[in-house]
Amino acid sequence: MKIKVYRDLMGANDLWANKTRALLARKKVKMLNLIGSPGAGKTALLEQTVKELSHKFRVGRDSLSRRGRTGLCGPASLKFPDIKLAVLEGDLETRNDAERLARLHCRVSQLLTGGGCHLEAKMVHYAVRDLPLGKLDLVVVENVGNLVCPAEFDIGEHAKAVVLSVTEGEDKPLKYPLIFREAKAIVISKIDLLPHVPFDLKKCLSFIRKINPHAPVFQVSALTGRGMNAWTDWLALLGAPG
Amino acid sequence: MKIKVYRDLMGANDLWANKTRALLARKKVKMLNLIGSPGAGKTALLEQTVKELSHKFRVGRDSLSRRGRTGLCGPASLKFPDIKLAVLEGDLETRNDAERLARLHCRVSQLLTGGGCHLEAKMVHYAVRDLPLGKLDLVVVENVGNLVCPAEFDIGEHAKAVVLSVTEGEDKPLKYPLIFREAKAIVISKIDLLPHVPFDLKKCLSFIRKINPHAPVFQVSALTGRGMNAWTDWLALLGAPG
Repeated sequence: MKIKVYRDLMGANDLWANKTRALLARKKVKMLNLIGSPGAGKTALLEQTVKELSHKFRVGRDSLSRRGRTGLCGPASLKFPDIKLAVLEGDLETRNDAERLARLHCRVSQLLTGGGCHLEAKMVHYAVRDLPLGKLDLVVVENVGNLVCPAEFDIGEHAKAVVLSVTEGEDKPLKYPLIFREAKAIVISKIDLLPHVPFDLKKCLSFIRKINPHAPVFQVSALTGRGMNAWTDWLALLGAPG
Repeated sequence: MKIKVYRDLMGANDLWANKTRALLARKKVKMLNLIGSPGAGKTALLEQTVKELSHKFRVGRDSLSRRGRTGLCGPASLKFPDIKLAVLEGDLETRNDAERLARLHCRVSQLLTGGGCHLEAKMVHYAVRDLPLGKLDLVVVENVGNLVCPAEFDIGEHAKAVVLSVTEGEDKPLKYPLIFREAKAIVISKIDLLPHVPFDLKKCLSFIRKINPHAPVFQVSALTGRGMNAWTDWLALLGAPG
């Protein structure tokens, strides 16, 4: 006799996440889950990332000429293999963030949770399935602005990265330890504001190391471009085949 | 025959919230639910609020002499009735925020969710019940740093207030509309950083008005004290008897 099994919300979420992971593995595409508070500068970081990649690597003339509608970010690489990037923008409401990236001719989709506090694996799965995966190396998912809930939900990613802006205070790694523990990369953003805010960088780094001894920490300013080089190198390595 | 009723999580939460509201009504104490992103400056705002109230009103010698352990914030008022304040600090982890307020001789308790993304009404109820309500006028609950989930859970408060820092970007009212719609007061914090960040204040105010046409908007800097006067007046009126 067949037994009916009812799975809880988290169980169902994990099923979809595993489906996405299997799909990405078949297509040899990597996925990053980018997490941070509202206003931590996740979209600004991605804007600058797209620009930096264009500078760093040779820009694919073809993708630019298609003016973003079908164009893929991530030009042919000199140092790394050609990394082609798409972005999934998670928000409760508005398409503002997706529009910012589309202006840079980046392949981007907007995922609206309609009030939900995190991206669920099922929605991400449908969005990933609709991407031209054969032409991509890396999908970056910008999760909903929230340091708590997105850390708890697998969306099928290969790595999580957390963005912490210097305006938020140096104690956040201790106060929100889960995401800092899970992150494979930690970005300290808005470092151009360091002279104007009471942020103790040394303390922050020591708090991060208490929670996560090994993940690389990138100190960046998306406004000035400072520190972006090491971050885009890390991203390119994540997206590299193999 | 008696019918067993099982309530869902939200239903149970509302029961506890209503219990708290009834208790506060009996004791003639008001409660504010303060909500904002991690690092929006909620604790700094409360620190400055406690200091401002001490400046504004006559400091109760008695409460200061007890050195915070049993001392109550909120000195005898000149303009308003004597507003006595206690704070409940919500966090996932650490007692950092409660310690910051205790240093100012403020009656404060720390509520740790242990990873939970919002304060639940039951935990708040027990914390409220343990306060010397007969000696208080106003309880300010600093919710967990999160613009999404805390907006959805009633904790028995009389009003919600939202804190948005200028470093988070002017589009947040549109991207997180629920809390901006529900708020009875909106605080734009860290205005001392306006010269250093790409924040369009005029746009932000118009976005706020789209979502919430009537709530007062306070532009404050906890660092310089600018704008604190109007905010503490509003708080004092909220806490005033009647």
